[in-house]
Amino acid sequence: MSELRRDPITGRWVIMETDNPTRPHEYENEPPVWRPGTCPFCYGNENLTPPEIAAYRDPNTAPNTPGWRVRAVSNKFPALHIEGDLDRRGLGMYDLSNGIGAHEVVVETPYHNKDLSDLTDAEVEDIIRMLCQRSLDLAKDKRFKYIMIFKNFGPSAGASMEHPHTQIIALPMVPKNVKEELTGAEEYFDYRERCIFCDVIRQEVYEKERIITDNKYFLSFCPYASRFPFEIWVIPKKHNSCFMHLNNEEIPFLAVILKDIIARLKKVFDTPAYNFIIHTSPLDSNGQAESYHWHLEFMPKLTRVAGFEWGTGFYVVPTPPEVAVKFLKEVKTE
Amino acid sequence: MSELRRDPITGRWVIMETDNPTRPHEYENEPPVWRPGTCPFCYGNENLTPPEIAAYRDPNTAPNTPGWRVRAVSNKFPALHIEGDLDRRGLGMYDLSNGIGAHEVVVETPYHNKDLSDLTDAEVEDIIRMLCQRSLDLAKDKRFKYIMIFKNFGPSAGASMEHPHTQIIALPMVPKNVKEELTGAEEYFDYRERCIFCDVIRQEVYEKERIITDNKYFLSFCPYASRFPFEIWVIPKKHNSCFMHLNNEEIPFLAVILKDIIARLKKVFDTPAYNFIIHTSPLDSNGQAESYHWHLEFMPKLTRVAGFEWGTGFYVVPTPPEVAVKFLKEVKTE
Repeated sequence: MSELRRDPITGRWVIMETDNPTRPHEYENEPPVWRPGTCPFCYGNENLTPPEIAAYRDPNTAPNTPGWRVRAVSNKFPALHIEGDLDRRGLGMYDLSNGIGAHEVVVETPYHNKDLSDLTDAEVEDIIRMLCQRSLDLAKDKRFKYIMIFKNFGPSAGASMEHPHTQIIALPMVPKNVKEELTGAEEYFDYRERCIFCDVIRQEVYEKERIITDNKYFLSFCPYASRFPFEIWVIPKKHNSCFMHLNNEEIPFLAVILKDIIARLKKVFDTPAYNFIIHTSPLDSNGQAESYHWHLEFMPKLTRVAGFEWGTGFYVVPTPPEVAVKFLKEVKTE
Repeated sequence: MSELRRDPITGRWVIMETDNPTRPHEYENEPPVWRPGTCPFCYGNENLTPPEIAAYRDPNTAPNTPGWRVRAVSNKFPALHIEGDLDRRGLGMYDLSNGIGAHEVVVETPYHNKDLSDLTDAEVEDIIRMLCQRSLDLAKDKRFKYIMIFKNFGPSAGASMEHPHTQIIALPMVPKNVKEELTGAEEYFDYRERCIFCDVIRQEVYEKERIITDNKYFLSFCPYASRFPFEIWVIPKKHNSCFMHLNNEEIPFLAVILKDIIARLKKVFDTPAYNFIIHTSPLDSNGQAESYHWHLEFMPKLTRVAGFEWGTGFYVVPTPPEVAVKFLKEVKTE
């Protein structure tokens, strides 16, 4: 028998296979196939990317040369372009706008084959610091309403480059999925006068059924109404609506917990493709929103989304979070 | 430069690559890989499926034996189960329900390798008639609020069986994506006192930029704010909110237009994987809703959905509908 679960924030229902859950080895692990060619993100190939916007590099090294640890560059094939004024208009009954926005790539490491879990704590801290720094800078541009940070790892997760990188997109409107989450959280806040994410944390800490690990500032857990098997959320324990306002004391703890979940997933699934997305509040909320709470949603790519999911927004999840968490906890990391 | 377009019904924005659109041969066409084994949907293997619920078959042939043209059976691995009462309850701050629902498979043809476009008009009419018949029957069950009909074709579209089949799921709640579309259509109706889909048809017929073909009762076109490249909608020209109320005069025209779009796609892309979903009104609308208009959304699987789309619900579409329609129209069918 399966169980239907409702996501408390968005109201989305998922179908959870509770009686006969799929175990890790039963998922098909697609081996990644990459196009051959020179990697523009590799050390020494700095001239193959657009000019760097920011980098952490050794003193006395010039931009766009070796000597860097983390590099932010414009996306060579941007989904949106930075130049111009926003021009929103109608076309009969339709609406359109020119494609204004920013699309940057943070090259996480000079090493082609080192993913986050293979880097040192300090190296991952640098990546997080760069994501915050670029967000703070893009936030100054009044044309932008939302900054989305996400990572595609592995071709089946939509990555076109093998070299580890994270992407930042600044958008001239708040995306629909984000709005939905914000509205759900606001409605809960209006009713209870509490942040729904803070309540989720309390419930998870109380139940202890879905927590992977925690540290001084962060918690990682498999959410109750996961949309994907082995979905993991990383959330700050203290209320904060905005990722880019992460402080220097917190960054090392985020680095450690992020490395930890990836290391665990790699033990359970060899090297799964994955996406993660940082959910944060829109830029116009002026710093802090009482009802919203930033978090990172991590989704290993183990299943294919089919017609049913596209049509309904109803997801079928073959492994419930309570089962996933057992596999994730029992592996030894380090 | 790209263009941002807003879907008039749901308000979803898409990023359309208008300046440098991707042409058909530039999409990677993944060759389908199927697991070997006996096909339970093939002629003569009727004993390998759950007992048939309905079939169109030669007179004097017994259920669950050869002699059929179309067969409806329960899904052997159903996402939801038909037995029991709906039991919705809370768990701390979370909501859950037992997994009540129906999950049926309509085996479209006895032939393992014939997809819709390879069948005769009469054979496709039988499939459509069976989908209506099963919907009407499931609609009598008061526990169900929505009936979703969808097809996954090809492994990359999520199909686990190669033999052509369509699925029907009856759900105890109206799915989120459907609700969203209904709400958008209702808001438009409240404001304009017109069906938004009827207005879309009018605008498309007026512009002539995105129409593939039409016949007495149906229109096929690439929607203005397509989420996927080469997305196609098939819509009845006359207002009708409910797929299962399709009449016998209309069915042959739907069969012809459905075969036509698949034949065109196969000429443009060899044999692409695809999903289609029938969007229809919920069961509680008691027959006809003024604001809603059933239609079929057809999505060839040419791209992979990545982190950005998951995070935002903002889709990047490499081929605008005006360009897609040119490729679809210039191929010769038959």
